[in-house]
Amino acid sequence: MKTLDKPVKPGGVIGIIGGGQLGRMLAMSAARLGLKTCIYNDENHAPAFQVTPLQVAASYDDRAMLTGFAEICDVITFEFENLPAGSIEYLADLKPVRPGAKALATTQDRFIEKNFVKSLGLATAPFHEVGSAQQARDAFAQLGGGGILKTRRFGYDGKGQAKAASADEAATAFKSFKGAPAILEGFVDFAFEASVIAARGADGAFAAYDPPENAHENHILRRSTVPGRLTRAQGDEAKAIARKIAEALDYVGVLAVELFVTRDGALLVNEIAPRVHNSGHWTIEACACSQFEQHIRAVAGWPLGDPTRHADAVMENVIGAEAEAWESLARSGALHLYGKRQAKLGRKMGHVTRLRPKS
Amino acid sequence: MKTLDKPVKPGGVIGIIGGGQLGRMLAMSAARLGLKTCIYNDENHAPAFQVTPLQVAASYDDRAMLTGFAEICDVITFEFENLPAGSIEYLADLKPVRPGAKALATTQDRFIEKNFVKSLGLATAPFHEVGSAQQARDAFAQLGGGGILKTRRFGYDGKGQAKAASADEAATAFKSFKGAPAILEGFVDFAFEASVIAARGADGAFAAYDPPENAHENHILRRSTVPGRLTRAQGDEAKAIARKIAEALDYVGVLAVELFVTRDGALLVNEIAPRVHNSGHWTIEACACSQFEQHIRAVAGWPLGDPTRHADAVMENVIGAEAEAWESLARSGALHLYGKRQAKLGRKMGHVTRLRPKS
Repeated sequence: MKTLDKPVKPGGVIGIIGGGQLGRMLAMSAARLGLKTCIYNDENHAPAFQVTPLQVAASYDDRAMLTGFAEICDVITFEFENLPAGSIEYLADLKPVRPGAKALATTQDRFIEKNFVKSLGLATAPFHEVGSAQQARDAFAQLGGGGILKTRRFGYDGKGQAKAASADEAATAFKSFKGAPAILEGFVDFAFEASVIAARGADGAFAAYDPPENAHENHILRRSTVPGRLTRAQGDEAKAIARKIAEALDYVGVLAVELFVTRDGALLVNEIAPRVHNSGHWTIEACACSQFEQHIRAVAGWPLGDPTRHADAVMENVIGAEAEAWESLARSGALHLYGKRQAKLGRKMGHVTRLRPKS
Repeated sequence: MKTLDKPVKPGGVIGIIGGGQLGRMLAMSAARLGLKTCIYNDENHAPAFQVTPLQVAASYDDRAMLTGFAEICDVITFEFENLPAGSIEYLADLKPVRPGAKALATTQDRFIEKNFVKSLGLATAPFHEVGSAQQARDAFAQLGGGGILKTRRFGYDGKGQAKAASADEAATAFKSFKGAPAILEGFVDFAFEASVIAARGADGAFAAYDPPENAHENHILRRSTVPGRLTRAQGDEAKAIARKIAEALDYVGVLAVELFVTRDGALLVNEIAPRVHNSGHWTIEACACSQFEQHIRAVAGWPLGDPTRHADAVMENVIGAEAEAWESLARSGALHLYGKRQAKLGRKMGHVTRLRPKS
C-alpha cells in the first residue's frame, strides 16, 4: 500500500473516483488551491467531467484504465464509498488512497460499522444481524418492537431499506433483498436528526464544522440548518464523537457522522460517511474553508483550513423537477446546480444556501 | 449585433475570452450555477484551461477559430479589455457579447474614458492629451507640476506608464512609447486608493459590493481591505459613482471603478475596468455571491445575487516567488492558486483572503 510522504505540490493531480456532484465540488475546490483533478467515472456523462479536462470514463473494475488513472494522479480519493473493494485495493498498491482501506472496509458494511461504533463506547440504535429469514424473525423478537431492515452494503437515500412491523414483515423484507446480508435496526424515537462534518489531516490535526440539524423527506435530505436545535453541549459532544471515530480509523480526509438526537438529549450514531456529505454543503458559503476544500487539503497532505462558521445558514436540496424553477431559486439565495442532464424523480439536481448574520 | 433575449439556461455555455486567473475564477463560478464555459486563450497553457474541458487555443484574431468558438457559446464575455476591437465586433455579429461594444470602446482608451467620466459630472485627476513630444511639453506646462505619462491603450499593472518631473522628461517619456498616443495625468496627493466593484443586470438591476481600500506596491495590487478607511458616506458615494457609470454605458456585467480618495475626502475616478477585478477577490469568501458569480449571472441574463458582505476581509496577492510559501500561506487563510507554471517576477500567482467577524 502506497503512502503519501510529502504534500502534493500545487500543480499536482488529485484523482477522484466518482463524477457526481460531490466529485464536481471537490474538483472545483482543488482548483482553488492550484491543484488539478482527474475524475474517474463509470458513465460518459458526469457532472464532474464539466469542471476538469482530465477525465477517465470506464468501469470501476477496469484494471487497465485504473492503472492509467493512477499513473496520472499523485493521490486518489473518492466521492462515494460503495466502490468495488478490489478496485480500491488495486489502486492503493499503485498510489496513495485517502481515506484508506480501514475506513472503507468499516463503513461499507452497516453491521461492521455499528459494531465499530459500539466498540468506541458510542451509542447507536439497537441492531441485530440478519442473514436468513429465520434470523429476521429472531431479530424482530429480540428488538421487542418494530424496526427497519437495511442491507449491510450499498444502501443510500433509503434504498435497500424496508420497515418491518411484525416478524413476518421482517422475514418478507429479507427475502425481497434477494439474499443480501442485512441488519434489523430498532426504531429510535428521536427529536430530530443532525450530523457532524469533520476532517482529520495527515498530521493528525482535527477540525470540525458546527453540526447542522437535518430534515429528510422520502429518505432524501431536504434541509440542513445551522445552528439547529442542538445545544452548545450537544454540538461539542457531536464533534467529540467525530474525533473519536476519525482517530480510531486513522482517518485522513473529511468524514460525516449522521446522528439521531433523542428526546432526552442523547446522541446516537446513525451512519458514518467516509467522504464529504450533503449536509455539509452550506460550508461553501458560511465558512472560509468549505468541506470540499478541507477534504482536498487533508488528502493532499496540506494543513487543514479554518472551519469557523461566519454566518448562519440554511441549505435546501433542489430535487428532481424543482430545478425547473432555477430562475426564482437563483433569486432566493446562493444556487448550485450540478450540471445533470435529466431531472429524474428524487435526483439531487442542486442546492440553495441562504445565509443570515450569525446569531 | 446579437442580443440575448432570454436567460441562458442551466447547461448553456458562457464563452470567456482570456484564460488567466480571472477567466479561471469566472469559469468556476459558472460551474456552480450549472453553466458550462468555453475558454478562448491565445496560448496553449492557460490557468482557465484547467477548469473546463471546453477550450480553444488560438490567436485572438483568428476568424475561423472565433467563428467556431461563437458557435459553441450562448453568450460571450471576456476577462480583460485589451482585445483587438475588430475581434469583439466580429464575435458580436455572431453571438451576444457582454458587456457590449460601448463599454469596451470607452474603457480601452484612457483619454476617451476620462472624458466620459468628466461628462458624467464625476471628478478625475487633471489630464491632457499627448499625441506628440511637443504636446507632452505643452501638457506638462498646463498641469503646472509633475505628472505621469500613460499610453491611452493597453496599459496594466503600471505597464505603459512613466513619471515626468519636467517638460523634457515628459517629451522623452512620450518618445519611449514609440508614437503610442498617451495622456499626461497630474499627480493626485491622495490619502489612499479604493475601488468599487458593482454589477448591472440585463434588467437594469444594480448591485454593489462594499468598496475596499487598496494598497499597491510596484504598481501591482498588494492588498485589499474591507472595510478600509472609507467612511460610510464615501462608501455610498463610491457605489453611486459606479451606478452612474454602469447606467451611462448601458452596462451588463461586473465592472470595477478604481478611485483616489483625496486628503480632503473627495473621490476621484482613476480607472474603469469593464470586468471582474483583483480588488474584488475577497468577495469569494466574504459574500454569498462573489464578483465572479455576479458577472456570470449578469451576462447570462440571470437575476443578480446578493452582494451583502457577511465578514470583514483582507485579500493579499501572492506574487512571483512568494508562491513557494504555499504551505504556510494555506495555513494562514483561504488560499487561491491560479495554476500558473512559472513564478515570474511580478506575476500574480494567487491570493489569500483572511476573514474576521464583521465589525
